[in-house]
Amino acid sequence: MPERYYEDYSVGEVIKADGVTLSEADILDFAFRYDPQPFHLDKEAAAKSIYGGLIASGWQVGAVTFRMLVQAGVLGRGSMGSPGLDELRWTKPVRPGDTLYAEAEVTDMRPSQSKPDRGLVFMTYRVRNQSGEVVMSFRSTQLIRRR
Amino acid sequence: MPERYYEDYSVGEVIKADGVTLSEADILDFAFRYDPQPFHLDKEAAAKSIYGGLIASGWQVGAVTFRMLVQAGVLGRGSMGSPGLDELRWTKPVRPGDTLYAEAEVTDMRPSQSKPDRGLVFMTYRVRNQSGEVVMSFRSTQLIRRR
Repeated sequence: MPERYYEDYSVGEVIKADGVTLSEADILDFAFRYDPQPFHLDKEAAAKSIYGGLIASGWQVGAVTFRMLVQAGVLGRGSMGSPGLDELRWTKPVRPGDTLYAEAEVTDMRPSQSKPDRGLVFMTYRVRNQSGEVVMSFRSTQLIRRR
Repeated sequence: MPERYYEDYSVGEVIKADGVTLSEADILDFAFRYDPQPFHLDKEAAAKSIYGGLIASGWQVGAVTFRMLVQAGVLGRGSMGSPGLDELRWTKPVRPGDTLYAEAEVTDMRPSQSKPDRGLVFMTYRVRNQSGEVVMSFRSTQLIRRR
């Protein structure tokens, strides 16, 4: 992981991840383990659903794009975890063969008032598909160690 | 999946899932794929972190407990997906060997105003560990087909 601490973030900064293509096999495997609803796990049932075909679990879209953002350096050795997420929205279906591009924007930051070793970095995450449509977004707070 | 439609939910109903124990291997495998931060992926680094040892990715806690809730029948053939989550909080670390118990409470419901084939079911999800401590919670809206 990069040597990235609180002082290395700045409001307005946007970190972009490389793309990740979700195969049909990836979607079916994740659904089998974690989200076995018919429109994620069963092509025949999915074709008859309101989605008209197989779509990826929203948990999978979150997990795979978070991986790509970690790999892109959005968090570094200063990461101390996150207390949570807000306003997570799945705005478009993700289908087999879609390629996802995630980005994180630093919207605000402040030192912790109770713990001088860390700060809070507020981020908005967006995930787009190959057509540029936003398929998922959320806000989160990251706890980041100060140098 | 059970034959569960909008009319089969009621406000105040609580659906409880069976427990799921997270092994160290599960935690490491999920971290390797989706959330490779040192306190999820590296026992030695985790021991020196603020968590004092390996903890599960929050995405993993969400995904595995959602699986247990689907298996418990929280969603049935009437499920049409979810537009999103709100106020997701990770309130306690989840460590290797912890057993997680998830529940979903129906807090409100109403027919869709624009689409007569479906209703909205508002749920609060809670995940507790074997000591009864809440480790994660969130609210979500489910779109459910009417009979």
